[in-house]
Formats: sequence, structure tokens, C-alpha cells
Amino acid sequence: MHDLLIIGGGPAGLAAAAYGLGKQLDVVLLCTDLGGKAGARQQLADQVEPEHLVGEEAFKALWQTVAAQPQQIVEDYVIGVFKREQLFHVLTEHTTLHAPAVIITTGARPTQLGIAHEHELIGHGLGYSIATHAHLAAGREVAVVGSTARALRGVAELLHIATRVVLIAPFPGELNSVLGQRLRADPRVDILEGYTVAEVESSAGAVQAIQVACGGRVQRLPVQAVFVDLGLVPNSQVVRQLVQLDERGFIVIDQQNQASLPGMFAAGDVTSVLCEQIMIAIGAGARAAQSAYDYILSQRLGLDSKSIGMR
Amino acid sequence: MHDLLIIGGGPAGLAAAAYGLGKQLDVVLLCTDLGGKAGARQQLADQVEPEHLVGEEAFKALWQTVAAQPQQIVEDYVIGVFKREQLFHVLTEHTTLHAPAVIITTGARPTQLGIAHEHELIGHGLGYSIATHAHLAAGREVAVVGSTARALRGVAELLHIATRVVLIAPFPGELNSVLGQRLRADPRVDILEGYTVAEVESSAGAVQAIQVACGGRVQRLPVQAVFVDLGLVPNSQVVRQLVQLDERGFIVIDQQNQASLPGMFAAGDVTSVLCEQIMIAIGAGARAAQSAYDYILSQRLGLDSKSIGMR
Repeated sequence: MHDLLIIGGGPAGLAAAAYGLGKQLDVVLLCTDLGGKAGARQQLADQVEPEHLVGEEAFKALWQTVAAQPQQIVEDYVIGVFKREQLFHVLTEHTTLHAPAVIITTGARPTQLGIAHEHELIGHGLGYSIATHAHLAAGREVAVVGSTARALRGVAELLHIATRVVLIAPFPGELNSVLGQRLRADPRVDILEGYTVAEVESSAGAVQAIQVACGGRVQRLPVQAVFVDLGLVPNSQVVRQLVQLDERGFIVIDQQNQASLPGMFAAGDVTSVLCEQIMIAIGAGARAAQSAYDYILSQRLGLDSKSIGMR
Repeated sequence: MHDLLIIGGGPAGLAAAAYGLGKQLDVVLLCTDLGGKAGARQQLADQVEPEHLVGEEAFKALWQTVAAQPQQIVEDYVIGVFKREQLFHVLTEHTTLHAPAVIITTGARPTQLGIAHEHELIGHGLGYSIATHAHLAAGREVAVVGSTARALRGVAELLHIATRVVLIAPFPGELNSVLGQRLRADPRVDILEGYTVAEVESSAGAVQAIQVACGGRVQRLPVQAVFVDLGLVPNSQVVRQLVQLDERGFIVIDQQNQASLPGMFAAGDVTSVLCEQIMIAIGAGARAAQSAYDYILSQRLGLDSKSIGMR
């Protein structure tokens, strides 16, 4: 029996683990990939310096803190989470762990383009987070694929940075929102509605162009980066029968990162409050751990879970 | 004219500045003390190793990122903040700065005990944040002064760590709450109600005992640490006529760290969502900067402030 189980090894999970270790809790961090996808860089054509990501040093510092306690890390795949008699049971491929409190930081995965060799292009000009990599677009031609609110926000950001922005929108999505209409009217954006991506061309390890198709017609557009936002899918399946999810499957949390089931907390991109940025995910993970600690303290005193708090 | 002004140089302010610099915004960080009070350690009697604070490496990394851009830092005292025609005017002792968006990260200050030499004892066994320093209480006798919800939460934390906890409560405060009643009944806590602190004794640079008084009677209790929580006072005076504050003067924010006045954001201990912990403050500051950036993008496109967002 442990004090706290954390599922997911990205920045939110690492921050939660670092907080718990600092409180001398018996914390176990369960993950298949310590560090998660944070720190994955892009290398574009003619890019001289390696990309610098804001918050990556802070993230590395946390990684070191947690990695220094290997006995508190279980690298295993989580199959299921159950709660019985005030205790969580986390079943993995090789073991079962128990604790009164659990933090879910399993993140979200982007919907893929579905083109050939997509995986090999990631980090070489193909990416799924404009907010993370927008600064690389300076002086370049870029394409955005998708029409989610997040994709359109990305176009609004790239407008002021890139020399040309092409928005490829297979579906109308949010294109009729206030922002979508504003972007339609903007001479700095070319919107290709109803188009899909046929191919992303690369050469010398970097994206060089995108081929888009509509009703049999194919166009080739020279771009040095392709940002795909066809929607994020939360990795919430292991708790979907335990806690309230929003209509897209993200875990609903309150301002203290408490999920709808007492003793369960969540942080990062698996929640209805998107983080996207490393520092924000770190803060959310630490906040979830602080709330979990308050919950553990109240359990130890035999009190209701809301009896203890900062304010 | 700048893009974004940040007032306050603690972890929330540094994170906001790092985010803004990463977005190539013209950010100015206004502060009197770059770094704020984060990283202030305690040195107790017989303590061998220097205190380690969770998140301090992350904080140092941010400090270095921001300090490397000295032209974006103005060390000056802010006298007033005004908004006119979509623009904020921040008046300092030596200059006036302008920007469409402002982030307030000015923190909160603890109510002092009001004893002689109090300032000299800070960091030598006298502290104002149990959540930050509780781990040092292992195997020691400690005193908590105050009866706020935060003080009682601190006692609940110290119970499992310290060998003895004395709670000195000059006022009833929250002592009749569920948690307060539970602590009254706990044999591990001595509660001295109606007592005040007459003196904190130190020797060889470390707290050794506390003298408490009630109706002329004075008691001397040997303790190695004194945690004071007589309430936090938010440093919100420069914006108190601009935005909604809660009943204690903390800036009211939404989940995106937006204050009640468009273009004004806030993060950290000056807000109604207490951070207390370095990592949480970093996350809050970055979240405020992300929201401010969305606001700046919407202004550039001539849209309402809520038109752009991640979800």
C-alpha cells in the first residue's frame, strides 16, 4: 500500500511526483515513458540552431529530481483503475498497486493526418502543437491542417510570424466562428476549404512541400512546416467509468484539480483545462499533488475530503 | 509602447516573462526584487544539510532565462496602474510604461508577529509558510501561531512529521471548524487558546524556544521552529480600483487567470487562488501569460477578447 499513485510521466506527472517526494509521501509514478513527449524538438529546412522550448530547463530539473528515485518509478502499462472501500487499485500488466489517492496525467494524443511516413516526419517539419513551435515559423511558409478552435488560434499566432500561412480545412469545423470569419477575410491567410492532405514532401530530413487534394485536383504548396490540428484525443480510457468526462472525453476537474470521484485528481492535457505548455503542465501537476496531499491529510484524521485546504 | 507589462518578480512573474520572451513579445518585467521571496531557506538548530525546496531548480532555470534579457527588466517601484482607451499605463517612481495587457504577480505578505528582532529570526527557525518548510520539522518540536484555515492545515501536516506541535491561537479564528475541532481532540497537538507570543528565543543563530503569555502568565516552550500564520495580506493595492477583489483583497481570477478588467491578468499569491508552492506559481504565471497572449492576438485582429482560445 502506497500513499499516492501517479499515472503518466509527462511534465504534469513529474511535477506531481516531485511534490509528493518533497512531502516524504510514498509516491509511485507509473508510466511507459518517463518524460513523456515534452521536449520533442522540431528541425526545419535551413534551421541553424536547435529549437529552444520555453520551460524545458525547468522540466529537465524536475526529471532529474524524480529519476534520482528509481524505486518510486514503475515503468509499466496501466490496464485498469478501480476504487473499493476508500482505496484505489491500479492494475498494470505486471502488478497491482494500492493507494488512497491517484493522480491521472496521461495526456492527450493528436489525431494523425493518416499519410504515408507520417511518423518519420514528426520533428522534421511536421508537428501537432502550434503553441509550442510557432516561433520557428519566422520568415517561413507554413501550413496548418484542421479547423478546430485550437487550429484557428494557431493561425492567428502564425499570421504575425510566418511569411505565408495556408490553412487546409477538410471540414468547416470552427471556420464560421468569429475568429474563423476574421481569418477568411485576412489577406495573409489562404484557406483551402474541403481540401485534404495527400502527401507531405521532405528532402534532406526536412519538410519542403505539402500536396493537397480536392475532388481529384492536386495542388503542391511549398512550405517548411506543417502543423496538424485535427483534434486531440484524451488518454482517459482507464478512468472513463470512474469519473465525469466532458463531451470529448477529457476529465472534468475543479480549480483544485480534483476529479468528480473523491481521491482522484488529474492534471495536464487529459483534463478539460488544456495546458499545452510545459510550465503550465508543471503547475497543474503540482496543484493536483497539493490537493491530493490535503486529501491524504484529511483521510489520516478521519475527516471529510473538503475539510482541509489552504483557504 | 510594449506588448505586455508584468508587475512582480517572483516565480509567477518570471514564468510569465519567460513565456512572453519565448513568444517574441516585447515584455517588460517590473519589480523591485528579481526572484521575489522564492528560494528563501530555513536553517534550524542542529540542521546539518541546507534546506532543499521542491521546484527551486526549476525556478533558478527560469530566473536565468529572464535575467539574460536585462533590457526587458525594469527594477522600479510601481506607484499606479491606469487604463485608458484600451491601453494600460503603469506609473513607476522613474518612468511610465504603456501596453495593451498587464499581468499582476505582486504576491502577498504575511502578517508579522510584531515581536522584537522578528526580521532577524526569519530563516533561522521563524517562517511564514508551513507548506514550504514542513519537512524540516521531522523529529523536532514546533510551534504554529495563528488560527486561519491555512494555519490549521499546517498543523494537520506537521502532526505526522514533528515530535510535538503547539498551536498558539490568539483568536478563535477557524478553531471551531471541523478541522479545528478534530485538532482540539488530538493528543498530538497542544492548543493554547487566547495566548500571544511574547518572545522567540534564539541562540547560535537558531530558534530555541518561544515564550507565550495569557493574562499576565508567561510560559516558555522549547521549540526549534515557529511558523506564523496570522493571515496573508495581498499586494493588490496598485490595482484595487481597477479590478474585482475578494473580501480580503485578493484579485478574483477565472480559470484562465483573467481578472475582471479586460487585458488584466493575475497569477500567484496575489490572487484568490493561493499558490504557495514554487511550481504552482510557475504554472499560474505561464497560464496568465498564455491568456494575455491570446488577448493580444485578438486585439491585433480587432476581435473581442474572448474570440481566441485553446478550446
